[in-house]
Amino acid sequence: MGRSPLWTAIRDHISEEIGRGHYAPGDRLPTETQLADRFGVNRHTVRRALADLAEAGTVHARRGAGVFVRHRPTAYPLGRRVRFHQNLTAAGRVPERRILHLETRAPDADEAAALRLDQGAQVHVYEGLSLADGTPIALARSVFPAARFPRMLDALRENHSITAAFAVHGLPDYTRASTEITAKPATPTLAAQLHLPAGAAILRTVAINVDAGGQPVEFGRTWFAGDRVALTLGSEGL
Amino acid sequence: MGRSPLWTAIRDHISEEIGRGHYAPGDRLPTETQLADRFGVNRHTVRRALADLAEAGTVHARRGAGVFVRHRPTAYPLGRRVRFHQNLTAAGRVPERRILHLETRAPDADEAAALRLDQGAQVHVYEGLSLADGTPIALARSVFPAARFPRMLDALRENHSITAAFAVHGLPDYTRASTEITAKPATPTLAAQLHLPAGAAILRTVAINVDAGGQPVEFGRTWFAGDRVALTLGSEGL
Repeated sequence: MGRSPLWTAIRDHISEEIGRGHYAPGDRLPTETQLADRFGVNRHTVRRALADLAEAGTVHARRGAGVFVRHRPTAYPLGRRVRFHQNLTAAGRVPERRILHLETRAPDADEAAALRLDQGAQVHVYEGLSLADGTPIALARSVFPAARFPRMLDALRENHSITAAFAVHGLPDYTRASTEITAKPATPTLAAQLHLPAGAAILRTVAINVDAGGQPVEFGRTWFAGDRVALTLGSEGL
Repeated sequence: MGRSPLWTAIRDHISEEIGRGHYAPGDRLPTETQLADRFGVNRHTVRRALADLAEAGTVHARRGAGVFVRHRPTAYPLGRRVRFHQNLTAAGRVPERRILHLETRAPDADEAAALRLDQGAQVHVYEGLSLADGTPIALARSVFPAARFPRMLDALRENHSITAAFAVHGLPDYTRASTEITAKPATPTLAAQLHLPAGAAILRTVAINVDAGGQPVEFGRTWFAGDRVALTLGSEGL
């Protein structure tokens, strides 16, 4: 059983101060020496507490610059319905989508398989940046069957909303049939697009959305900034 | 509309060769020069095709060593029931758990909140390595209310299975109440434990499991090797 070691008390104390806003997201914490003085312990004890807070994602160390309070990630529910605007508004953030690229082309092998397309079919492609409170949180690429959604690109240009663009084509509802989640370091391009440091971790989702009849309507790949978003799963509504 | 550019045809061709096993996971692809000769195109076109395959996770470049075919990640379903052995067996892998650490201690603030513990309650802690076909895929740390599951650590030592250890305490079933997924670069410790290169991306899940009455029985944090596992969500069974 045993008593709790000293460093856990210091960790919990700092964590509490962050929780009640004494240190805000983006703030630099006092140095190890300052914290050691303040708590009357040695620097090793402080270091252990800070390392644990870093592992928990509460703070992060920047080499040579100090230890900073992390921004809380935006909670992004992976429900049966994927709705960017709703999700972000519910999380108390201001959602924004910037279109980076729109085109119509032949699908690659993965896209054709996911959308069950016949040989020769074309797809509309949307590539955009998703922002929360003005900070980029994800790069999204969605591919739609061009024959079924002929006005997709114009509708996206007008509305910046996939839900609205589907509605234009008489599709009022669509749901997530499958999602796959992996993580990998950001490529230099992706890091630049998401304003991330090189090597930051990316949370990648690959999802297929279907209409009420189970027909695929969207094959979407999204690259989330791994520390700005927490994908959440509840037990209900999934 | 427009025709597909040449590099997409080369990408699809290589992708197809990988798909039918002409190049197997772990194999090195021919060099850019060799591929350029073979397809009768310039190296820029080959590079574009390889970059796209790398972005899709089909291949990965190792600086100075070449471009290699990736191992397919183990599909790990995030269903309502979290069952490591079942999940891996279903994916055609041999599951193994190695216990790294077992202890009983006071909970930290997150653990106490997740398990709804009273002041002074203790938790049993399990930390272990999860392997698929002998390769580490995740480090897991689970925390259980000690008062309710007094024989947890002994049961884990005997069975290496959380499901079996719950059964010992008369709990036949438990389900996932909530899960949160983020990504971050591996710390040096984590990279060493999972045999990953420094800076590899980690997929972290934080989950609360509950009994049939909704009472929390486990607070679990798992750090998955981001490129060895694909967390999957279906529309059914969630």
